This record gives sequence, C-alpha cells and structure tokens, in this order.
Amino acid sequence: MEISKENFPEWYTEIIEEAGLVDKRYPVKGMHVWLPYGWKLMRNIDDYFREIFTKYGHDEVYFPLLVPETEFKKEGEHIRGFENEVYWVTHGGLDPLDVKLLLRPTSETAMYPLFSLWIRTHADLPLKIFQIVNIFRYETKQTRTFIRMREVHFFESHTAHATEEEAEEQIRENIEIWKKVAHKLALPYVLVRKTEWDKFPGAAYSIGAETIMPSGRTLQIGTIHQYLQNFSRAYEIQYLKEDGTHDYVHQTTFGMSERLIGAIVGIHGDDHGLVIPPEIAPIQVVIVPIVSKNKENVLEEARKVLEELRNNFRVHLDDRDAYTPGYKFYDWELKGVPIRLEIGPRDIEKNQVVLVRRDTFEKISVSRGEYVEKISSLLKDIHKNLIVRSNKEMFSRIKEFNSLDGIREHKGIAVVHWCGSEECGRRIEESTDKRIIGIPFEKKPGKCVICGKETDTLAYVAKPY
Amino acid sequence: MEISKENFPEWYTEIIEEAGLVDKRYPVKGMHVWLPYGWKLMRNIDDYFREIFTKYGHDEVYFPLLVPETEFKKEGEHIRGFENEVYWVTHGGLDPLDVKLLLRPTSETAMYPLFSLWIRTHADLPLKIFQIVNIFRYETKQTRTFIRMREVHFFESHTAHATEEEAEEQIRENIEIWKKVAHKLALPYVLVRKTEWDKFPGAAYSIGAETIMPSGRTLQIGTIHQYLQNFSRAYEIQYLKEDGTHDYVHQTTFGMSERLIGAIVGIHGDDHGLVIPPEIAPIQVVIVPIVSKNKENVLEEARKVLEELRNNFRVHLDDRDAYTPGYKFYDWELKGVPIRLEIGPRDIEKNQVVLVRRDTFEKISVSRGEYVEKISSLLKDIHKNLIVRSNKEMFSRIKEFNSLDGIREHKGIAVVHWCGSEECGRRIEESTDKRIIGIPFEKKPGKCVICGKETDTLAYVAKPY
Repeated sequence: MEISKENFPEWYTEIIEEAGLVDKRYPVKGMHVWLPYGWKLMRNIDDYFREIFTKYGHDEVYFPLLVPETEFKKEGEHIRGFENEVYWVTHGGLDPLDVKLLLRPTSETAMYPLFSLWIRTHADLPLKIFQIVNIFRYETKQTRTFIRMREVHFFESHTAHATEEEAEEQIRENIEIWKKVAHKLALPYVLVRKTEWDKFPGAAYSIGAETIMPSGRTLQIGTIHQYLQNFSRAYEIQYLKEDGTHDYVHQTTFGMSERLIGAIVGIHGDDHGLVIPPEIAPIQVVIVPIVSKNKENVLEEARKVLEELRNNFRVHLDDRDAYTPGYKFYDWELKGVPIRLEIGPRDIEKNQVVLVRRDTFEKISVSRGEYVEKISSLLKDIHKNLIVRSNKEMFSRIKEFNSLDGIREHKGIAVVHWCGSEECGRRIEESTDKRIIGIPFEKKPGKCVICGKETDTLAYVAKPY
Repeated sequence: MEISKENFPEWYTEIIEEAGLVDKRYPVKGMHVWLPYGWKLMRNIDDYFREIFTKYGHDEVYFPLLVPETEFKKEGEHIRGFENEVYWVTHGGLDPLDVKLLLRPTSETAMYPLFSLWIRTHADLPLKIFQIVNIFRYETKQTRTFIRMREVHFFESHTAHATEEEAEEQIRENIEIWKKVAHKLALPYVLVRKTEWDKFPGAAYSIGAETIMPSGRTLQIGTIHQYLQNFSRAYEIQYLKEDGTHDYVHQTTFGMSERLIGAIVGIHGDDHGLVIPPEIAPIQVVIVPIVSKNKENVLEEARKVLEELRNNFRVHLDDRDAYTPGYKFYDWELKGVPIRLEIGPRDIEKNQVVLVRRDTFEKISVSRGEYVEKISSLLKDIHKNLIVRSNKEMFSRIKEFNSLDGIREHKGIAVVHWCGSEECGRRIEESTDKRIIGIPFEKKPGKCVICGKETDTLAYVAKPY
C-alpha cells in the first residue's frame, strides 16, 4: 500500500483491488468482477448465513430473478420506493415482451404470489425461508465498491406468521441472529429504528444495524423489517385459523449484503492492507519458507507443516519461486491473512516455527510440539482483539450534542434529543446536512434540539453512505 | 405417484412437483421456484463441481450478469447464435439506458474483455476459472422443467492457454472431469463431437455428453468446447511469448446445468417416485419410527439412532406426529431417499434396525453393532447398481441401422454410417425427422446411408430435447 489509511476514500479504493478482492474494470458502472480471493471471502460469509439460518429453522430456496410488472405493482408504497431504481427487461430476442419484467431489487414481489399458494392454514405457519442471490438497483448516486453497487450479492430471509406477536418474536430472533453474524465478522454496530421517512418501502417499521467507517460516515450493514400485514393484504396471503375464520399473515424480512465486506475492509484494515477476521478468512495461516542455501530442505519441512495444519486450519503454503520472503510478507499482509508462519533453517534446527499476528505484528516462536494449539488460541485472540479495538474505535465516534453546533463537522454519530416529529426531524437533517440514521432503543429524558419539547427519544445523526 | 413411468412425459411433469423439487407456478413461463429439497440437491451437485474443479486447478470467480451490447457484438458467429434468444435490459428506472444490456446467456462476452486485461505474458497462462450462476435464454420452443428453461442454474469453466496443444490437453482434462461428474451422479452417457451446424456459436468444435431419457429422446447434459483463437482474436487476448513475439491465447470452455437434475429424475426414477444417487442425495438415510403404544420409547431410540448416524451420513428423522409410518414410506420413496431405516419396538428388543433400499426395495435387518458399516456399504451398492442398470438401459437403446428404415420410430439413438458431408447429414435429418446429435469417437468402416460412399464415420441420430 502506497496510501495511508488516513486518506480513507483513496485507501479504500486502492486496497480492494490491490488485495485481489474484485476487479473494477468491468465495463458496466457499479458492477465488478469478483476475483477468487474476494469470492472465497464472500462465500465463507454465505456459508455462515446458511449455517446460522438453518439452525434457526429457515429453509434455503431460490426464486427467479425476473418479476413481472403486474406482480411488482401490487403494493403501492413498495413500488413508489423502487420504481426509479429497477432495471427493466423489455425485449426477448428481437421481440418486445407482452409483460415487462424487472430485475429483482429485493424479492418480496417475486415471493409473495407463491406464499399465497403455499399458505393455507395455521399448520403452514410459521414459514421461514432465505435465499442468497444477485439483486439489481439502478443507482443514480455515485457507486462505490461493496457499498453502493448496481449488482449486489444479497442475502434475504422472509418469514410469515399467524399473529403479530409471533412476527414480533421473529424480529427479536432476527436481532439475535444479527448479533451472531456481527460477532463472527468482528464488526461493531449499533441498532436503530429507522425514521418513518427512511424505513423500507412497505414496512411497518425497519431496524438498521449501522456501523461507522473510518471516514466518519455510517454504513447500514443489516436491515430487519416488520411488515405486519402490509404485503399479505396486497398479495392475498391468508390462512385458515383454528376458529374457522381467515386472517392475513404477518411478515418479516432480514437483509444483508456484500456491504459486510465493505465494512470489514474499512474497519479492520490498516496501512499495510486488509485484516480479515479469522473465522471467515479464506486463508487463516500462510506458510512462508525462509529460503536459504539448503532450500529444498526448508521447502520440504514447510510442506510437512502444511500437512500437519491442514486438518485444523485453512492454510496455504507460499512456495512461489520468483519472490523473496520479504515480498511475500508484504503480499499476505496486504491480503489480511491473520497469521503468517515463518519457517527457516534455524527454526528447523530448533524444531520451532515463528508466528506473526496480522493485527498487532507480534512475533512468537513456538515449538512444533505445541504449535497447533498455539495457532488455535492465537486465532481466537486475534478475533477478540478485532472486536475490542473496532468497538472502541466506533464508540469513540458516537458523541452526545446538546445543540446542533458542531454536528456538521463531527465525524461519526451525533446523539441528540428529538421530539420525534417529522418537522423537527427534517430540520435537524437540513441544518446539519446529515441524516437521522435512526432512533436508538435507549431512552433518556431531555429536550428536543429543535423545539425544546420534553422527550426521552434520541436521534442518531450522521452522514450515511 | 398416480402415474406410471410408462407415460413418461406426464410422469416427469408430475413427479418434479410431488417430490418437492420445484414449484412451477411462478408467473413467468420457463422460470420456476426451487424448493428447499430441490435446491439442496442442486447445491450438493454444485459443491461437487467446486471440489473437482478446484482439485484440477481452477479458481472460482463471479462475473456480472449484465453484458453491454457493445461487448456482446464482438464475435460475429457467437452473436448470430444468440441474438434471437437473449433478454435485453433497456431501461433503468424510467430512463432508457445509453447502452443496452443483455442478461448473460453464457459468459464469454462478459469475461473475455477482462481476460484481455489479465493476460499479459506466458507466465499468466494457463488461466483456469469457473463460476456457478444464473443464465437466461429467451426460449421460444416449449419449456420443460430443468431441461429447457428461460432462467437456468449454470456451471461454466473457461480456460486460456499458450498453445493449441495445451488447449487440446485441457479438452482431455475436461473429459476426465466429466467422467467423474457422471460417475458421482450415476448418469450414463455417450460422448460425441457435434456437427458443424450444431456446434456452439463461435467454437472450433464442440463435444456433447448425451444421455437417453425414458422417452427415447436424448438430452445433452454436458458440453465441452474448443475455441482455439476464435474469441481471443475478437477480444484481443494476447500474450507475450518467451521469444518476445505476441500471440493470441487458445481457449476452452465446459458447461453443465440443472439439466443434470432432469436426467437424474428421468433416468433413475420409477413408479414410486425419484431415486436419488446416494453421493448427492440431500438425505441419504431417513429414519421412520414404527410407532406403537410405547411411542415415546421408540421415538427416543430413533433419536439415539439419529445421533449415532449423524457424523457419517446425511440423515433425517421423520418424527411427524400427524402421519402414519405407511404414509411416511410413501413420502420418502417419492423423494427418492436411498435408504429408509425402520425402527420399531421389536427392533429395539432385538437391538437391530431394518434397512430398505430405495432402488430395489430389498429389506435387511441389521444389528446396531454393525449398522454404520452396513449403511456405508449399502449406499455404495445402491450407487453401483444405479450406474449398472442405467447404463444397461441406455445402451439397449443405441442400435445400428444399415438404412434409414425404422430410424424414425426408434426410441433412442440410431447409429448409421455417414460420409460426413453437410448435404448427406441434412438429408438424414430431414428423412428421419430427427437430428444428428453428434459423431461418436469410435470409427468403423462402412457406407454412407445416403450417398453410399465408403466411410468410417458414424452418426448418432436421435430426437433431442
């Protein structure tokens, strides 16, 4: 890396390509090619989605990408929220289509016509499914890798429940799942309820998981939505109750995307490159042989190490001939591999290896008899350290303000009292040139920064990506 | 199943939905919803693709879905082959796009502009990548589940090599990989070279892996293409040779799709439903407790069995309260689970379980002390049996003909001598109302069925899906 993380936007742009996550030269704006290393990272995250959602009783499905205009138009608010940002397929071959098709920007309108066929009685509930797919949004704002893309790698879960209470319980479960995902990825976050004018189109309310990037701007990295009966009424998703009457189901959704990688890059990275959390790292341990005259001997021992570690870790031996150990150090630091294992002639003599932590650069010599355990515990330590230091950093950027003074310049989240009215909310946003990214669950008595009314509601004010 | 496999088209249509693979009621023709059981089967196959191609040195990538019209139009034959069957995105939001975008029907035109940036010198070769994606074809013919779809779940590998010899070596490697895939899925096949007028648009030559469905029609379930320099010239993919000169790379591809599931359904299924090959079965062993008065006791033991088997097999305990064992037998036979494990009070007394093979319905009692090993060997036997019986069935449908008489009525592949000229080839096709699905590698002296010229070339004549 030539660029220090101090210059965050340039650093972010450069590191993504230098580390080999994606290639941005694809000739359509806002769409990139996922390179092997980046795709493996994404797939490791996907695998965790599968594991955790399956554990919580969700089934994986796949719905078609293309949605007929007629289905899309059933829920009014939802259309208005998306009509300016969907891609339209109008022709098949040389012929115009009878019914235009859109590329899913999210899958409510693809799924819910089927939900109305699948759900008949209370015995069919709850219905809990998820899918991992490509979605499309015709973004008119500036695009940014992983953060604001036109093709997005997307996770979405959808549930349907008999009662509002059960849907509310699902929201709590989704939050529980979110906490596990954030832990796995070592990402700091705050949970907020979105304002009425910023909630998901068609939702009763939306909850956002927001993190703070080194630029001070916030990034929404997870969203949980309570739909109640808004969509089920539009899509006629009814069930027969035990008492013989019918009711519309209550629905929730949970969405996450490649933005998680954007957050990992931005939050954990440093002047040397990426720092990938161990649990999802494509390579957890990279072996770099410290080559010397008795080269074959060192390489042979490095291969033994590879074999010994392979069953316990995702490990890679860098046996490239054309590069020096120094270049390899640089390269794997850039790619953020959590542990570098060095082995040279002296280590072989002493029956040891040298381990170097990517997060702190601490160097440890450890005997071959104990190194499997040591690597295990080091990976856990690195994971813990990433959580602790990123949380510390993020929370240092959340600051209370008693007036609007200084909010515009604050790099992070400004916490203010807000009476909750849209009028005052909009004024907060206009005066600071920022947005209310949401309302924290925490309550605290005080006075609205605009109208002075007594309130226990807080607002998080920030500049979101 | 109400319908016997004798009525193959109806049987095929019905079983796919009854077994819970997909839901065909999605409101766009040629696109279906993958249900959890079907999607798991597809994902097991995908996982094997990943395993085998990674082993052979391929890296997984992901290229964008949307291809600009300008890139698509670079290779003339390729466009002409696809221009009638691509979907066009013409609008983003309410605005017409400056450059129209198409949904990939396959990814040559998305990938190769990047190949020309990635490949600089001989040291960058060979390049071997693959991706697993959704592709789109605006099929005007009748659509058919898994077989002829408008959205297709697709595997594609792409390679680039310095020399023609290396590209030819890759074709041989692709064939080797294909054989492993077919073995894993227990699918019978023949390999043929496609005719000039049936090869992939832009290819120098194409090889098809063809199987025969119970209807007697053939299904192409894998394709391997040699492009030589046809695309590299169009996309300017050059490399610097060791001698300082430049040359265009030589390219190959390998494609497979959800058709593999169509073949599994059609070829292995029977009057009771699906028969899924053990290696890729979502559930390998289903435990059905034979419920009696001391129900809890039986269920408890069934749960112990589940725990004992879980580490070795993909196993499911059907503890649904509302259904009888008889209904459950029916249900899991329909879904094609390779082994049913029955456990009832008498089995518990005798410390045994009963195993029932899905392929032969053979029943075996086995003691709990030996049942893990027995299940392992049974799964292998089932796999072997599916290979043997499906090959026997398929090869019984490949028949030599000395004239065109009877070919029209033959349900399967008719083998005839052919001089190799397009004129005679077209006449064979017209007179039989079938197609030359390809030329087998095997040679044999004889006379062309049309012109009578001496030839050692054979043609496979059949009605393809």
